[in-house]
Amino acid sequence: MSLRFDLLATDGAARRGRLTTAHGTVETPAFMPVGTAGTVKGMLPENVAATGAEVVLGNTYHLMLRPGAERVARLGGLHRFMNWPRAILTDSGGYQVMSLSELRQLTEDGVTFRSHIDGSYHHLSPERSVEIQRLLNSDVTMVLDECPRFGTPRDEVANSLKLTSRWAARSRAAFVDRPGHGLFGIVQGGVHADLRAQSAADLMDIGFDGYAVGGLAVGEDRDTMLGVLDVTVPRLPADRPRYLMGVGKPVDLVEAVARGIDMFDCVLPTRSGRTGQGFTRRGAVNLRNARHKDDPRPLEDACGCPACRQFSRAYLHHLIQAREILGAVLLTWHNLRHYQDLMGDLRAAIEAGTLETFRAEFHAARARGDIDPMG
Amino acid sequence: MSLRFDLLATDGAARRGRLTTAHGTVETPAFMPVGTAGTVKGMLPENVAATGAEVVLGNTYHLMLRPGAERVARLGGLHRFMNWPRAILTDSGGYQVMSLSELRQLTEDGVTFRSHIDGSYHHLSPERSVEIQRLLNSDVTMVLDECPRFGTPRDEVANSLKLTSRWAARSRAAFVDRPGHGLFGIVQGGVHADLRAQSAADLMDIGFDGYAVGGLAVGEDRDTMLGVLDVTVPRLPADRPRYLMGVGKPVDLVEAVARGIDMFDCVLPTRSGRTGQGFTRRGAVNLRNARHKDDPRPLEDACGCPACRQFSRAYLHHLIQAREILGAVLLTWHNLRHYQDLMGDLRAAIEAGTLETFRAEFHAARARGDIDPMG
Repeated sequence: MSLRFDLLATDGAARRGRLTTAHGTVETPAFMPVGTAGTVKGMLPENVAATGAEVVLGNTYHLMLRPGAERVARLGGLHRFMNWPRAILTDSGGYQVMSLSELRQLTEDGVTFRSHIDGSYHHLSPERSVEIQRLLNSDVTMVLDECPRFGTPRDEVANSLKLTSRWAARSRAAFVDRPGHGLFGIVQGGVHADLRAQSAADLMDIGFDGYAVGGLAVGEDRDTMLGVLDVTVPRLPADRPRYLMGVGKPVDLVEAVARGIDMFDCVLPTRSGRTGQGFTRRGAVNLRNARHKDDPRPLEDACGCPACRQFSRAYLHHLIQAREILGAVLLTWHNLRHYQDLMGDLRAAIEAGTLETFRAEFHAARARGDIDPMG
Repeated sequence: MSLRFDLLATDGAARRGRLTTAHGTVETPAFMPVGTAGTVKGMLPENVAATGAEVVLGNTYHLMLRPGAERVARLGGLHRFMNWPRAILTDSGGYQVMSLSELRQLTEDGVTFRSHIDGSYHHLSPERSVEIQRLLNSDVTMVLDECPRFGTPRDEVANSLKLTSRWAARSRAAFVDRPGHGLFGIVQGGVHADLRAQSAADLMDIGFDGYAVGGLAVGEDRDTMLGVLDVTVPRLPADRPRYLMGVGKPVDLVEAVARGIDMFDCVLPTRSGRTGQGFTRRGAVNLRNARHKDDPRPLEDACGCPACRQFSRAYLHHLIQAREILGAVLLTWHNLRHYQDLMGDLRAAIEAGTLETFRAEFHAARARGDIDPMG
């Protein structure tokens, strides 16, 4: 194994760990902001770091199409290109190929598709995906997988996960071990406990630096998602990090951490920030709503981000209404800070053995709703 | 007079001064970034200040329509609303009424128009414009003026400037003197030397804290604009600041400073930054151009802004191509820093009595064009 993972404490199924990469350590449970095309949208890298993030996610699909993996390599790799000196996890490109590109053709070898940017043809195989991620100099490389849509019949899911297992073996063979760089497998199997178990067993036979749970947050309800975690996570090796892909809302993070997940990524804090949604301890707030237009109070009292320290809800409402760039920037910043603060609280609670208390208070605060009415 | 202006040095017609407002001092010659709707687009106020700016411009037209002047006043004034503790100059709203709104009707009393945002009806008189700017708590209030389009016949320009003079007198009567707050008149008269002289004389009879030159940068060529300055600026009182409205490119600033202008505003550094143009000592650079896509060098070697210190031209090109918010933010930041650095150099040259040398070197650097081709 090339990536060190230290388990520092546990509290029930929840784990407090530390992942050591070629670009620094990552305290887990960790949330990874999504830096799709070589930028966490609207944020300077130094400000992403200031929110507490120690690792960001880069999208292989976007970067291979523009500016191109070989170009990024010539320019010194993705860390240098985007001026992010800390850890980077890259996805395999498979998910975006399925959701964004046109004219996809899936074969045993891989997937051929047309770019959503210029219509050009591209082929992505397990080996090419690993090669692209090496060119980007990713710290954590993800295997190419097939992610069936929610509602796919069971027999198709079973066939799909076997393809994912064969691709995982090819990815492992193609991956060049380097200190501080690692490869994660991805457990598929839809909502079926036995298929999840089979997928996990296949991947553990191959052996990876970490294990992701894929194919969730694709339309199923929260109970279904948590049920899949209940049957999947206990089958994964305790000494390796576990990454729940593409999830989620703050409540999802709390519940998944309680079930033993160590890593997360999601576009929600950045994407919803750009459209005027701010996350608080008492739930999500839509700053577009006219009730904020005369409110001199900060979005959240206790928050240390610039949006909350320097501006009122009235001003944030104005910026969102006027479609000002600064509105998107400030709410993105706040949301990233909110997510990192939540992860910090979860880590502290696990260390203290008080996760159940934290979890109860977390749910109670959300039940109270947004801050009390003025005056 | 309510605004103190100290003339510290001169070099030919150029002046080195200091304007003292209720919200701090402004070293002149000064460039004012445009904060249209209560935000310098894409920039945190602390970063605008870090570029060297000591005063920003707010647009009365935009702010009166959204969020509304009375609302800003209830929220503590524009400085507090936008978290900009330094000086603010507000325009009168007249220019944007003419360029942005619909269904304008101009009478002796003022102008009635429909909002470009929601079609609502509004009336702007000299008195209401002054009142709005007081509600915003502007440090420098501008009188409502009429700005004839470029190419307007001479007799219409003559009638228009007399209306502007009558409105200026009404504005002066409506303005409430407060320490550190002042009112500027606006010289009109198109390209006609005698009309400019008449307008300046009218305004000086009324008496203002400062004198703006309006009605330029509306389509005329640079020689015409500078010719108007040549016949107008010498007629303005030496002990009061002179403000050239809406101008301009770096070369315009250098030439206008050499002719005795003290203050400038222009959307160019912010607006062109959002579309991929970066200003350098060797001229403007279009980062959208494919020649930058493999260039590891900074936009400008000597620049201290984050765009130049942290990123390559290749990365900036990528951000602009991908329409990423960070591209707009970084080039806006760079351009504002470039403009402030230029003003700082001009101030230093005037103090040293070397403005002519600086001016010659400025033009020579631009004649050499963008940085040398890569090795």
